Amino acid sequence: MDDITVRFTDGDGSGVRAPVLIEGLPGIGHVGKLVAEHMIHELAARKVAEIESIYFPPQVIIRENGTIRLANNELYYARSGDKRFLFLVGDFQSTSGEGHYLLADTYVSLALELGVRRIYTLGGYGVGHLVDVPRVLGAVNREDLREEVEAAGAVISPDEPGGGIIGAAGLLLGLGLSRGIEGICLMGETSGYLVDPKSAARVLSVLCTLLGIEVNATTLEERGREMEHMIERLVDTERSMREDELRYIV
Amino acid sequence: MDDITVRFTDGDGSGVRAPVLIEGLPGIGHVGKLVAEHMIHELAARKVAEIESIYFPPQVIIRENGTIRLANNELYYARSGDKRFLFLVGDFQSTSGEGHYLLADTYVSLALELGVRRIYTLGGYGVGHLVDVPRVLGAVNREDLREEVEAAGAVISPDEPGGGIIGAAGLLLGLGLSRGIEGICLMGETSGYLVDPKSAARVLSVLCTLLGIEVNATTLEERGREMEHMIERLVDTERSMREDELRYIV
Amino acid sequence: MDDITVRFTDGDGSGVRAPVLIEGLPGIGHVGKLVAEHMIHELAARKVAEIESIYFPPQVIIRENGTIRLANNELYYARSGDKRFLFLVGDFQSTSGEGHYLLADTYVSLALELGVRRIYTLGGYGVGHLVDVPRVLGAVNREDLREEVEAAGAVISPDEPGGGIIGAAGLLLGLGLSRGIEGICLMGETSGYLVDPKSAARVLSVLCTLLGIEVNATTLEERGREMEHMIERLVDTERSMREDELRYIV
Amino acid sequence: MDDITVRFTDGDGSGVRAPVLIEGLPGIGHVGKLVAEHMIHELAARKVAEIESIYFPPQVIIRENGTIRLANNELYYARSGDKRFLFLVGDFQSTSGEGHYLLADTYVSLALELGVRRIYTLGGYGVGHLVDVPRVLGAVNREDLREEVEAAGAVISPDEPGGGIIGAAGLLLGLGLSRGIEGICLMGETSGYLVDPKSAARVLSVLCTLLGIEVNATTLEERGREMEHMIERLVDTERSMREDELRYIV
Repeated sequence: MDDITVRFTDGDGSGVRAPVLIEGLPGIGHVGKLVAEHMIHELAARKVAEIESIYFPPQVIIRENGTIRLANNELYYARSGDKRFLFLVGDFQSTSGEGHYLLADTYVSLALELGVRRIYTLGGYGVGHLVDVPRVLGAVNREDLREEVEAAGAVISPDEPGGGIIGAAGLLLGLGLSRGIEGICLMGETSGYLVDPKSAARVLSVLCTLLGIEVNATTLEERGREMEHMIERLVDTERSMREDELRYIV
Repeated sequence: MDDITVRFTDGDGSGVRAPVLIEGLPGIGHVGKLVAEHMIHELAARKVAEIESIYFPPQVIIRENGTIRLANNELYYARSGDKRFLFLVGDFQSTSGEGHYLLADTYVSLALELGVRRIYTLGGYGVGHLVDVPRVLGAVNREDLREEVEAAGAVISPDEPGGGIIGAAGLLLGLGLSRGIEGICLMGETSGYLVDPKSAARVLSVLCTLLGIEVNATTLEERGREMEHMIERLVDTERSMREDELRYIV
Repeated sequence: MDDITVRFTDGDGSGVRAPVLIEGLPGIGHVGKLVAEHMIHELAARKVAEIESIYFPPQVIIRENGTIRLANNELYYARSGDKRFLFLVGDFQSTSGEGHYLLADTYVSLALELGVRRIYTLGGYGVGHLVDVPRVLGAVNREDLREEVEAAGAVISPDEPGGGIIGAAGLLLGLGLSRGIEGICLMGETSGYLVDPKSAARVLSVLCTLLGIEVNATTLEERGREMEHMIERLVDTERSMREDELRYIV
Repeated sequence: MDDITVRFTDGDGSGVRAPVLIEGLPGIGHVGKLVAEHMIHELAARKVAEIESIYFPPQVIIRENGTIRLANNELYYARSGDKRFLFLVGDFQSTSGEGHYLLADTYVSLALELGVRRIYTLGGYGVGHLVDVPRVLGAVNREDLREEVEAAGAVISPDEPGGGIIGAAGLLLGLGLSRGIEGICLMGETSGYLVDPKSAARVLSVLCTLLGIEVNATTLEERGREMEHMIERLVDTERSMREDELRYIV
């Protein structure tokens, strides 16, 4: 098997073209994941590709009907009016630093191939306590994007987030830069401990302003509860498996 | 050396063909390992291949007579009436996530080469407490397998196992799917702390129903005690070696 | 993407030639980093190359203006009178042992290509307590360098540092040796817990003697405080991200 | 750089031929290392090759005179009467499981190239408490070697060591087996906490009987004390460096 496999659900993806990619992989407070999956649902996006990789955790996911599928990342495609979007979502990010880079590089190549000229990456910004009115922090990979992001309601501050952005949300911007793709990262303030629909609603609002579309947010909270439940199940399984691991894997 | 080496014990394996592969590598409660090794013994299966890999722990196993062999995985072959089976068993699973994928992919390729059309993977489902009457949970890689598995006595529930299946038991199903191999995973409920012959007996019973064969289960408990003893020795050695490791390996 | 990419800021670097490379990557007490960055500022060095790699942490750094860049290492070039210098600085060292070797090997190749005949590596020597008058310890990759280093004020003692030098500061000397590059490592005594400008001032002084140049040290302390602040931000971000990681990365 | 480099000290090693290789890399109680280094000294063995690798810790060792060298493994050659021996010693074993395999495979290839037909691997067997009269445990890679090993005074017991042999001492036997090299592992009982010259003396005695040579053991204890001192220094350096690492390496 290849280290990373991109499999188009439908032929070779030659019919799929969009100028914008929105990334919402798992991360802090699952804010990005929640926003992206909500948009996929509301815009009735269809899956166009699956990405499998040895850099994901070595496990399968069990669907509600008892069938399994490999842990993966997925690409969805949607139209809204005359606008077209791609969404990158999935079960996990890479388990290794090297894998993070190699996966992000694959995503940037894939984006270029599909006509993407701008990537939005979505995430949470963990502050360690509950936040009443979460702000949306922004970061960009070109200074001329800044004004647009601030006008849409995001805060670009020299002090937050202090250090950097770890994982796909950062790397897509960094690797996209040298390959001519504009990148904007939106991070919703969140405690960091639970799936946070309130933070997601704020990120969704800023993102929709930037995209020039409207997305109904009323089911976001319910979707957040479902996601929290699913994640708890995943975490439980992994914990119980990991405890036993010591007995059979050095 | 290659990263993964498959060495047929007897020529090139060209005489070995079977439509069914049963995987029982180490895992939770060693349920799968116990069932597979018991069947190997009861069906007088013979070893047909050894798999060595840099993804296994870097160690050798000492046999009772003082001779050593590399830690490995092994393929056994058995006939029962007009039925033919392959068994995949071994000392360890991979020590890394990437290795898990690459080993599982090798096993699927090997299975295809040997005519396998269905893989059964066996494991334990850790519940963290003793279980009086352990159930057997099932998962499948195609929905049309579900009815057969339930009819044989396994439970396919939307809520158990919650998150997924880690390691070979899951990956063989996931990687087999895209290559045309049917996959069924049977997991016996178990506390997760000890080799569990009671859970293994239940898995064996469901599996035999699915295979349409009979296997005597009377020695399963004794075999479980032996396996527990062997594993304790392995774990002790590794612990004592690991403690010292800090002094000579960064 | 390549595992390691060297990108000259300005064409192919053919105009950049210097006999001396000074390495000051992050390390104990950030002594080396502080000295090298201070010299870059005082000598008005200009950036000539950026090194990106999958062996660095998978993250981007956010600049004060909200734009991001990939975590990287950088090469600077400066003239002082008729002397020319290269500086190797950056955000991080490798996250893996293998990456440490492969990056250091790349740096030695790059140095050879740019005419370097001597490498100075700078670091701290952690003693675990505050030091009033920090000494500068030296190590060399050829015995004939010893006298010069001691004459400049560094201590070469059979007992300190006891064991060895970990990371780029050591590997550049070790890998340089077999490729004909002289190597001198200067380590300032430091508690090891904070960015240590006092230790850096001592290392700077010994280094300047060896280089035969003068560098104003008055702003070193202020630069140390800024660096401490930046590092705290980085560490905070990473901690908060790492805590959450358990919930979505196996 | 190659992942593993074997560099003959003197041309291409074409003059070096020996039927026996004795491995004494760092390990439990440093018993093997102590025996092999003692023999190298007593037999006035000369270094014939250095092995460098990205699988060793990324560090250099500082010699007493302040010069550094890369962490490495080394091959020594000695004659005693009409007998010829090779010794494999060094600073470290691999830092990763995969590296352990790849290094051991390189050593077996090198041994074959140099005419080796038998490998002795030396180590300690940690029992967790002080031992008054340490026994020497043996393991072999061919059953017909057993009698000879027992006759020389080693104990081959079905229960000790329980689980296996981790690292080079085991892998050289395991990988040698399929390539036609006889392998004998001798393990001296030891507490596991300190360099143990008493255990080393016992292993040396059994090994000399097997080799049919005599080696003076009187300086073994003193050599053990020196080694303990050197190791403490190494461990201290690594600890202090590791503590700081959290601040600059993710």
